[in-house]
Amino acid sequence: MSEHVIVRTSRGPSDDVVTALEKSGVATAHEAHGRRGLLEPELRPIYPGVRIAGRAVTVLSHPGDNLMIHASIEQCREGDVLVVATTSRSTDGMFGDLFATQLLHRGVRGLVTDAGVRDIADLQAMGFPVWARAIHAQGTAKAVPGSVNVPVVVAGQLVSPGDIIVADDDGVLCIPLAAGEQVVEAAAQREANESAKRRRFREGELGLDIYEMRPLLERLGVRYVDADQVNRDSEAIR
Amino acid sequence: MSEHVIVRTSRGPSDDVVTALEKSGVATAHEAHGRRGLLEPELRPIYPGVRIAGRAVTVLSHPGDNLMIHASIEQCREGDVLVVATTSRSTDGMFGDLFATQLLHRGVRGLVTDAGVRDIADLQAMGFPVWARAIHAQGTAKAVPGSVNVPVVVAGQLVSPGDIIVADDDGVLCIPLAAGEQVVEAAAQREANESAKRRRFREGELGLDIYEMRPLLERLGVRYVDADQVNRDSEAIR
Amino acid sequence: MSEHVIVRTSRGPSDDVVTALEKSGVATAHEAHGRRGLLEPELRPIYPGVRIAGRAVTVLSHPGDNLMIHASIEQCREGDVLVVATTSRSTDGMFGDLFATQLLHRGVRGLVTDAGVRDIADLQAMGFPVWARAIHAQGTAKAVPGSVNVPVVVAGQLVSPGDIIVADDDGVLCIPLAAGEQVVEAAAQREANESAKRRRFREGELGLDIYEMRPLLERLGVRYVDADQVNRDSEAIR
Amino acid sequence: MSEHVIVRTSRGPSDDVVTALEKSGVATAHEAHGRRGLLEPELRPIYPGVRIAGRAVTVLSHPGDNLMIHASIEQCREGDVLVVATTSRSTDGMFGDLFATQLLHRGVRGLVTDAGVRDIADLQAMGFPVWARAIHAQGTAKAVPGSVNVPVVVAGQLVSPGDIIVADDDGVLCIPLAAGEQVVEAAAQREANESAKRRRFREGELGLDIYEMRPLLERLGVRYVDADQVNRDSEAIR
Amino acid sequence: MSEHVIVRTSRGPSDDVVTALEKSGVATAHEAHGRRGLLEPELRPIYPGVRIAGRAVTVLSHPGDNLMIHASIEQCREGDVLVVATTSRSTDGMFGDLFATQLLHRGVRGLVTDAGVRDIADLQAMGFPVWARAIHAQGTAKAVPGSVNVPVVVAGQLVSPGDIIVADDDGVLCIPLAAGEQVVEAAAQREANESAKRRRFREGELGLDIYEMRPLLERLGVRYVDADQVNRDSEAIR
Amino acid sequence: MSEHVIVRTSRGPSDDVVTALEKSGVATAHEAHGRRGLLEPELRPIYPGVRIAGRAVTVLSHPGDNLMIHASIEQCREGDVLVVATTSRSTDGMFGDLFATQLLHRGVRGLVTDAGVRDIADLQAMGFPVWARAIHAQGTAKAVPGSVNVPVVVAGQLVSPGDIIVADDDGVLCIPLAAGEQVVEAAAQREANESAKRRRFREGELGLDIYEMRPLLERLGVRYVDADQVNRDSEAIR
Repeated sequence: MSEHVIVRTSRGPSDDVVTALEKSGVATAHEAHGRRGLLEPELRPIYPGVRIAGRAVTVLSHPGDNLMIHASIEQCREGDVLVVATTSRSTDGMFGDLFATQLLHRGVRGLVTDAGVRDIADLQAMGFPVWARAIHAQGTAKAVPGSVNVPVVVAGQLVSPGDIIVADDDGVLCIPLAAGEQVVEAAAQREANESAKRRRFREGELGLDIYEMRPLLERLGVRYVDADQVNRDSEAIR
Repeated sequence: MSEHVIVRTSRGPSDDVVTALEKSGVATAHEAHGRRGLLEPELRPIYPGVRIAGRAVTVLSHPGDNLMIHASIEQCREGDVLVVATTSRSTDGMFGDLFATQLLHRGVRGLVTDAGVRDIADLQAMGFPVWARAIHAQGTAKAVPGSVNVPVVVAGQLVSPGDIIVADDDGVLCIPLAAGEQVVEAAAQREANESAKRRRFREGELGLDIYEMRPLLERLGVRYVDADQVNRDSEAIR
Repeated sequence: MSEHVIVRTSRGPSDDVVTALEKSGVATAHEAHGRRGLLEPELRPIYPGVRIAGRAVTVLSHPGDNLMIHASIEQCREGDVLVVATTSRSTDGMFGDLFATQLLHRGVRGLVTDAGVRDIADLQAMGFPVWARAIHAQGTAKAVPGSVNVPVVVAGQLVSPGDIIVADDDGVLCIPLAAGEQVVEAAAQREANESAKRRRFREGELGLDIYEMRPLLERLGVRYVDADQVNRDSEAIR
Repeated sequence: MSEHVIVRTSRGPSDDVVTALEKSGVATAHEAHGRRGLLEPELRPIYPGVRIAGRAVTVLSHPGDNLMIHASIEQCREGDVLVVATTSRSTDGMFGDLFATQLLHRGVRGLVTDAGVRDIADLQAMGFPVWARAIHAQGTAKAVPGSVNVPVVVAGQLVSPGDIIVADDDGVLCIPLAAGEQVVEAAAQREANESAKRRRFREGELGLDIYEMRPLLERLGVRYVDADQVNRDSEAIR
Repeated sequence: MSEHVIVRTSRGPSDDVVTALEKSGVATAHEAHGRRGLLEPELRPIYPGVRIAGRAVTVLSHPGDNLMIHASIEQCREGDVLVVATTSRSTDGMFGDLFATQLLHRGVRGLVTDAGVRDIADLQAMGFPVWARAIHAQGTAKAVPGSVNVPVVVAGQLVSPGDIIVADDDGVLCIPLAAGEQVVEAAAQREANESAKRRRFREGELGLDIYEMRPLLERLGVRYVDADQVNRDSEAIR
Repeated sequence: MSEHVIVRTSRGPSDDVVTALEKSGVATAHEAHGRRGLLEPELRPIYPGVRIAGRAVTVLSHPGDNLMIHASIEQCREGDVLVVATTSRSTDGMFGDLFATQLLHRGVRGLVTDAGVRDIADLQAMGFPVWARAIHAQGTAKAVPGSVNVPVVVAGQLVSPGDIIVADDDGVLCIPLAAGEQVVEAAAQREANESAKRRRFREGELGLDIYEMRPLLERLGVRYVDADQVNRDSEAIR
């Protein structure tokens, strides 16, 4: 029936792509990737102020069981981001400081998990960032098989091994390996573009004018009225 | 059918009322307003330690579309708080640092949104506070009309343009414009009252005595018992 | 029908047990207690970086009513942790800085509540830690009876008066009074054990080897494959 | 501070408006009202197959307290719909068969509540429909004041006394009193329009053609491709 | 550390108590038990129209693992209700028609589970009622130990083996064994009392009068006003 | 940046595979597929008692916008199941009876949607089954582009165009096209196997014996104890 595999793979992005995407951050890279690839907002960083990017090593675990995280460590290398999914919804604390110790030794950049995490004070002290669905100390078993480096769905987004993960205070983004360079380019253009606009906004110009939205509003039938024109009975525009 | 309007209005509280309510904060002003006006607790500040008050400029947007936020900027002035509602539940990141740049130029105090926000590290660096339902980088369209400065429901509370918004670490409060001065007065009384009680509590007095609740407990049939009186079978009082 | 009681009890753990468990923290003590006793992850600290342990004084309140918290203060003594449950789900802000002032005077260590809390900036300034389901300024009545020091269920966990509460950034744990010493011993063993492993992990050893999991993976049918062995059609292993 | 009032009012829609809107149902009337007025989908009917419309009599209750429902009965008359809000989120079973008995005697059409309901087998047997956030037998107190016939927010929607409630298997809609006739007209047009389209759809025509959407798709840049044109690496279009 | 036990016990209510409570149903028995013992409303019946009562046989399982349900069957006898809790939140489909076949053979009345259930069409056809947190076909492992017939918390309520479970369309109630007879008596009184009131309500009397609430409303400061007295500016009473 | 495409594809399962899987149903096919492929339990049928299987035609829509559903109809043929995802979470009623009329004409078997649906009484009357996240009448726009027949994530599960959808009262399952025949075979074996066991269970045999779990329980350290052996202080085994 089910096949449980640990896939050895060296598939992954170049250092240049990773470095550029880490600099761009989640919001910009998400826009540059055509507004795709964002994980659901339930995954939050356990402490603020960190931005990482790296190659995804994926884990598919049974809920309440962290055996496959143990099995995944060996597949991780410098610059990776461990990405943990469970076969059904769980908030158990599958991951803590002992795992982080092993991963830091290997140069892993952080953890993205669809389940729970614990030892968060230690993780912050160690400088090992985690984006998780929950903070929960609930201990887990090591008894049920799963897989490493297979495609998984995490927080509503497909993540394949070797894909590029970007994570910061705004959340977590997954960019397919093949799209990396194109996103880097589009992000650079977007940043240049935004930078110019930011200057104009600082001087008081409006997006309404810069993006030429006034004709659009008119075409859509949006009317300007003065408050005293508004029917005194507020229901009319409710 | 539906009317989409942008209402120009100067309706709003006096500076004195705003200043006093900002000093009182959400919990006190909420009590002073008869325990009314509080938004649901799902709206949280994106960073702690800020307290603001100001005039509400309201936006009603289609979910996943921030066109009307663009349209609203021009209606904002010094001391306002932008309040964004969507016609149905959404956590998309409709608002980010470029909007904040425009609003800071106009002296706007902050944003309250029933949807999502992004660029939160930038917003904190800029000192632009936001109370939001979610932090989500998800990009939005600019294609569907809505309204500016119409009454909206945000997180379970009606907010009319010109109402007074108070927001801090405890959440967000909306006070109808007409009730502002009365709330300021009641808040001042409450603060004086609490201050006196705080002193007595620090010296060891009990609320049970200060508020004369012992007779109430007795009237309600609450009995004092010693642990050894309690039926050994804990079920009896379960 | 219903009995509303305030139970006077001196039942509680020794100082040694409390001190040891505070040092261990939630995750370790939870494991040492056989992975039992953890409250659901919805209860979060209102500010990070605190760890407490203490004797549980329990309150069972009607939702939206904090009368019984008033009644409970008098039953609290040095080293206690106040634990508040409601008879049905509520996020109202039943607790604020005036209660904390009374409790600090009595040497109470903190609050664990299945409902809401307010005045959180003040509580942090006072150094009174709270683990709560929600931050909500919503005011409450003082009209409906309840009980103090009866067994309650808080966030999915039974808490009896006199039980031992441990709380930190990882959440909240309840250890039955009778199990305290045994948990302290098991926690000490676990810490010694983890400390040795942490050293080995720092030097690059793997849990897979230390815990001898390779034979288990094999027995469970988990196979190692190289990426190029994986069917190009990713569906085969989906 | 807070004012608790029971407002006597005869404000309400004509029988013609109510009859027409009951016939239209929620989805059609919602569209006819410009896609406004719909309550959040968490409010569900306790049994299927019923459609009602009527004048809103509103109740604002403290959570866990049904005193004001008792106070509201007297304000209800033939053709009304009772609408219950609580000052903060609650699922307690504030309403059961004894209330329904009183309301049926007065010709009330049904209940819409932002909280919980119980005795649902009896309510179905009596033919008294309810739209509620939860089915929960949890009993409530009768100790805290509130108001009757004041504007309330229910499931994200403002409902004023005298407004028109429409409810069926699709949910609950509130139409401001002043907008009733206009909505009736727009609904009639919409139904005629839909009826014609339904015939054409039955014969195999497509919305894409009837609504002339093909040019829109093209303008928005949507391209038609054959499966074999799609990059074999599915990532390119992910 | 953790002890996993299967407790053989004959502790349980008399047939008379069970029969009487089944007749009363959840809402009445809950009131008769002092408004205690109700499980959270997330547990719903998989099909409507059933009412059961019986002796609780409890199971504590690891999430995603139904080994201990297998172990529990043997401990069940005629008239029991199986009650399944998990050590952390799970919606996996731990229970299906094969378990129901075994339980029906032994005369078990139904299942109450804090997790998920599957094969619901078959269960309905077999006449085996289930109250569950979710309907989910997700399969589970049989690898992690747990316990049978120990006290468990299910949906916010403590259930001890031998306690009395009552379940119907309104939800699930747990009555401690020792309280059974007292609840039966109180329920009988309540039913007589309600029956009399129901007759009076049918004839048009009001709860406001029968329960003599008018003086209470007055004492609480609730005022009657006519709509035209209400400030035209609706904010005054918002 | 983003590419919006409508993919024409004839990729799909054979009639034999579809017929066999419809007969097996969700729970059995899910087990036969190695406990993979199940959508999250939030997707529920709008009416009970239906089981379907068919080829997936997928739609990726902007939240609050059903333009791409219009565009997808033409790509549907006899035996298909329409599968709708949104780029971010939405419960809007994107689908109603007019769409169902078009799809029934083309022989489409039903709809699976990660968003909302309306006109559910009509849909049931027409015999068009829907599995949806919500029932919500909220109307949507037709202004933002998306894609048809691209891989989408729906309720936590990847669905590619041409995959096999099975849906019934237990939920929704997606089987990759390539795995169809293997699942059919495994399901047939499982059904034969279960049928034999069902007979033995009916006669009183236990899973504990048939699956030979007693040695496993012993190996896992689960002990049998009599109730009177259990420490009277129930805490010892809590």
